[in-house]
Amino acid sequence: MTYCVGLLVNEGMVLLSDTRTNAGLDHISTYKKMYIFEEPGERVIVMMTAGNLSVTQNVIARLEEAIEAPEESATPSIMHTESMFKVAEVIGKTLSDVATEVSAKMTRNAQAASASMIVAGQRQGGPMRMFMVYPEGNFIEATPDTPFFQIGEHKYGKPILDRVVTPKTSLADAQKVALLSMDSTLRSNLSVGMPLDMTVIRRDECRVSSFRRIEQGDEVFAAMSTAWSQALRAAFSEIEI
Amino acid sequence: MTYCVGLLVNEGMVLLSDTRTNAGLDHISTYKKMYIFEEPGERVIVMMTAGNLSVTQNVIARLEEAIEAPEESATPSIMHTESMFKVAEVIGKTLSDVATEVSAKMTRNAQAASASMIVAGQRQGGPMRMFMVYPEGNFIEATPDTPFFQIGEHKYGKPILDRVVTPKTSLADAQKVALLSMDSTLRSNLSVGMPLDMTVIRRDECRVSSFRRIEQGDEVFAAMSTAWSQALRAAFSEIEI
Repeated sequence: MTYCVGLLVNEGMVLLSDTRTNAGLDHISTYKKMYIFEEPGERVIVMMTAGNLSVTQNVIARLEEAIEAPEESATPSIMHTESMFKVAEVIGKTLSDVATEVSAKMTRNAQAASASMIVAGQRQGGPMRMFMVYPEGNFIEATPDTPFFQIGEHKYGKPILDRVVTPKTSLADAQKVALLSMDSTLRSNLSVGMPLDMTVIRRDECRVSSFRRIEQGDEVFAAMSTAWSQALRAAFSEIEI
Repeated sequence: MTYCVGLLVNEGMVLLSDTRTNAGLDHISTYKKMYIFEEPGERVIVMMTAGNLSVTQNVIARLEEAIEAPEESATPSIMHTESMFKVAEVIGKTLSDVATEVSAKMTRNAQAASASMIVAGQRQGGPMRMFMVYPEGNFIEATPDTPFFQIGEHKYGKPILDRVVTPKTSLADAQKVALLSMDSTLRSNLSVGMPLDMTVIRRDECRVSSFRRIEQGDEVFAAMSTAWSQALRAAFSEIEI
């Protein structure tokens, strides 16, 4: 499985993904689930994927081919669309096409292949936007009322987001809450695993402000995780019923 | 949906369930999901149920009929079995039988009815035990390594349990962590709802030590919920990354 979370706040956005892929618990691999398409200062798009790996990799391959050779591709280049909405539309259609093709081959096993995605970014002159693309290819957009999206194993890490995240949350706090939400998921679900990929994009910069791969054993993350556990236990012991 | 959690600690056990049942979001009802069978001092059994309501109510009805008229019933009375293990076995078999019968009627709609249960209790002279019964009727037992079970919408409320619960947790703390786990679930999932039912059983008393129905607007629960939110936010602001 997977856990990815994207937060859209006034200062910008934070995107965080794990990297564990598994086909049964004895077949665990590390795969990148975050893809960045960037022309710094002009356009930045980040995609995070959850679901069938053959579907998500195929979608990414088609998008990349379209960027490299737009005239030879049936898919429009997401680096040249006129809006982020159009980007989400192209990705949704590509996802729907690929999932349909792959599922057609799998029906003999009564299985279906699907995936969902978080697509976020900004083009120069346009607003910063974040979308969640469903397996069927349709999508919804983050708003001030719903300033975050999650895909994959999203339930373990939702309570802390529900309590903390608003559009006024600072980018520093948004990184912190994304990491704590991931930490809760890592602790409670074996199928989500380190390392983590975290991208931060400041509003209107149209470029990746920071990208960090957090490896297993990362001291800062481990210290934060321990401090959070201690703080939770301390808070727990103070509560009276 | 449903959320039920049962904790088995050295001092005894805590069982907590919500009461919301829904068939679509416009058809929400309150149904008890916790059933207590008690002969005080001799035997106490608590069942909590999640899943298809027609299945769980049918299972309870058969168990009750068997208790009232054991000689007329194909199901043995769970008040007269020789062990808690046997109680779990009887309940598992009844669940499997009922689910199979109900599902047979539903296959025309390509649907299946299933349910899962937490069964816990103690008979005089035997150990206190807690089981989770799967929809197929098989079951597993709580151990010191796994001192809690959850059924229904279990993911939102798991992180706090993972961090706090051990067999050494006091009964007071076990009640607190069960309520906080429920609170996280209530906040993050609309299909789980008040009122709540909470039963506490002290080890070797073989009777219900306390039963409490916590209604919507319960001041103690609301105060705890608010205090926990504040404590979480305070803990969050203290964490450094």
